[in-house]
Amino acid sequence: MNVVDQPDLCDMTTPAIVDRDPIVVAIGSEGTAPVLTREFKTKIERFLPQNIGGLAAFAGRLRPSVARNIPFAHRRAFWAWVFKGTPRRQWVRGAERDAAHDIKAAIASGVTTGENIGQITLVGAGPGARDLLTLRAVERLQEADVIFYDRLVDAEVLELARRDAERVFVGKHVGAHRWPQDRINSMVVSEAKKGRSVVRLKSGDPGVFGRAAEEVEAARDAGIPLEIVPGVTAACAAAAGLTRSLTERGVANTLVLATGTGRAEDPLPDSIRLSGPGTTTALYMSVSQASRLSGLWMQQGMPPDCSVDICVEVTKQGQRYLEATVATMANVLREHRVTGSAILLVTWPSADGVTSAVPKFETGLSLHSETVVNGDRTQGYPVAPSFRGGHVI
Amino acid sequence: MNVVDQPDLCDMTTPAIVDRDPIVVAIGSEGTAPVLTREFKTKIERFLPQNIGGLAAFAGRLRPSVARNIPFAHRRAFWAWVFKGTPRRQWVRGAERDAAHDIKAAIASGVTTGENIGQITLVGAGPGARDLLTLRAVERLQEADVIFYDRLVDAEVLELARRDAERVFVGKHVGAHRWPQDRINSMVVSEAKKGRSVVRLKSGDPGVFGRAAEEVEAARDAGIPLEIVPGVTAACAAAAGLTRSLTERGVANTLVLATGTGRAEDPLPDSIRLSGPGTTTALYMSVSQASRLSGLWMQQGMPPDCSVDICVEVTKQGQRYLEATVATMANVLREHRVTGSAILLVTWPSADGVTSAVPKFETGLSLHSETVVNGDRTQGYPVAPSFRGGHVI
Repeated sequence: MNVVDQPDLCDMTTPAIVDRDPIVVAIGSEGTAPVLTREFKTKIERFLPQNIGGLAAFAGRLRPSVARNIPFAHRRAFWAWVFKGTPRRQWVRGAERDAAHDIKAAIASGVTTGENIGQITLVGAGPGARDLLTLRAVERLQEADVIFYDRLVDAEVLELARRDAERVFVGKHVGAHRWPQDRINSMVVSEAKKGRSVVRLKSGDPGVFGRAAEEVEAARDAGIPLEIVPGVTAACAAAAGLTRSLTERGVANTLVLATGTGRAEDPLPDSIRLSGPGTTTALYMSVSQASRLSGLWMQQGMPPDCSVDICVEVTKQGQRYLEATVATMANVLREHRVTGSAILLVTWPSADGVTSAVPKFETGLSLHSETVVNGDRTQGYPVAPSFRGGHVI
Repeated sequence: MNVVDQPDLCDMTTPAIVDRDPIVVAIGSEGTAPVLTREFKTKIERFLPQNIGGLAAFAGRLRPSVARNIPFAHRRAFWAWVFKGTPRRQWVRGAERDAAHDIKAAIASGVTTGENIGQITLVGAGPGARDLLTLRAVERLQEADVIFYDRLVDAEVLELARRDAERVFVGKHVGAHRWPQDRINSMVVSEAKKGRSVVRLKSGDPGVFGRAAEEVEAARDAGIPLEIVPGVTAACAAAAGLTRSLTERGVANTLVLATGTGRAEDPLPDSIRLSGPGTTTALYMSVSQASRLSGLWMQQGMPPDCSVDICVEVTKQGQRYLEATVATMANVLREHRVTGSAILLVTWPSADGVTSAVPKFETGLSLHSETVVNGDRTQGYPVAPSFRGGHVI
């Protein structure tokens, strides 16, 4: 193996080295690509915790006593605990003494402490693109023993998990019903009860129309620790893809996220609270309600030419954006056969001058009688294709 | 340098190797921590594009002709373009032929193509914690020549940028005024006009109270390409830290994000649209408006015991959570001297049975006359400290 780099101007140089003694990473390209080796060195520098070498050295010194005290069958679990569990987390955040104390205590008692209590993490996977996961989400995926996911999560996202992690699909198979939520909850809990680290991957942010409350409750009832990792919700990604903002001074100070489908018996949320002058409304899973909502809104005084951005399969393969108005949105959805996972961004701009002059927070219920000036909305919200990807019709 | 690992049960093993011939990465720990070397190998495997070795090998074969055709002074820029610019992006996504064609054409013409048009990227940095940046945000930071940031971004986040990237602080210095937005816009644009890659780091998501619209417009006026990278908005992170959901079936189907401070002359958004039965309201930068809003809401019929989670410095050092009700929130904020960056999560639960029975979308303006049953809210929204960090008072 040749890890010695030879860029243009030298006969020979040392390879790029990331040093966390005794941990050492060497990067070479046989002189073909010093730009790349420098880049990769920088990346590795960044993710290797500064003091991780100290933990390795400490562990190295303890190996003889581990060999004496920890039975062979448990040794692998012991080292996994040291290097992936609490001791490593303590060490990396600077509490080296606490970590050392716990490790020594575990060796002395011959057990690996009570860390084989399972845990559940609800991980926000973001809107779909693999690179819109957060670093924390990636880390939790890589720690997971088992991952529950549904069809809203791209296959690429799952590739970020460990190769040997178990993957359980709990979404809707073609021609079949979706798993009932209760069944998902009890599967997740029972895996965690086995002492496994369970990740429940949720599209977008788990707290926004992700039914997180039900899974939190199931974990709490079972006494299993649960963590939520927030994610990028689809409305934010949809707007970013359009190179537009969801809020804008003097145009839309309020952002409403709503969904058309809750329980089958749920009615729509009160349409009057979903929009009004100075509001952007992001509708999730509401394609089937578009016609009804647009009718109600126009009755309430929403100008028919208020813009609607229809954002389909945001950041996924098959992403597309369609432009409409509140008057045309139902037709546009039908014409383009939009079904399923689309976000509708509806903007009812402030009536310029009216918002600033009238202290509306004093008056309360006067929405029906308000004068609404729509104005030139396109000036307010610049809408253009992103220059990196983003297919705009 | 010893890159040979020696775990417990062997006299000697080979080091962990990531092979993208001719690029090779070797990881060793002198036998102290095979668990770690395996983990780091997996991570490196993941971020090193599968076919990147092919690009390095191709570049290696071209070095003689580059030395003949590209003047020495331009050679560094040429290789940076190959390994960081369009050719690398093409290559990595599988368009190796296109990349090879462009590289050869550039060598033949002796120039590095017109890629020194600058660009602006508005990057959502998330709520504060470094590991809540998305992979895409990290990548853009690492590509940036110059980064504009303000005090809402943690120093740790900036460490993710290249060491040689220029960092420009455009926030509020103690005792000084914030930079005017116009000045920020023109600085950002003028840096991009120099052909630099400019990142404007925004706390949270750029599209949510981030004044992105103004920066988008400035870039468009100047004809400079702009991209928005969405981020985790503070409300989502605040809820995740409380292990709670922002929406919940039968409790809150609607999520409203609002801010108390817009332009100085802006009044509050109409309080009636900010909440109502079945709504969670996340108030950004609204601490000073809490007393006024709670008064208006209770007048409108919000039960005084509706819960308010006060989320301070979410995911940053100094994070804390306070519990209050809509009746007590102004006092709690005062007692605990909460100022500045706090998110208030106000939950007005659905009146059980009422939402499902009355088709409210037909009636419009009947909010005042509604019967609201507050019920046992803690059952509806489980609120508990996260088991990983998260300090709850």
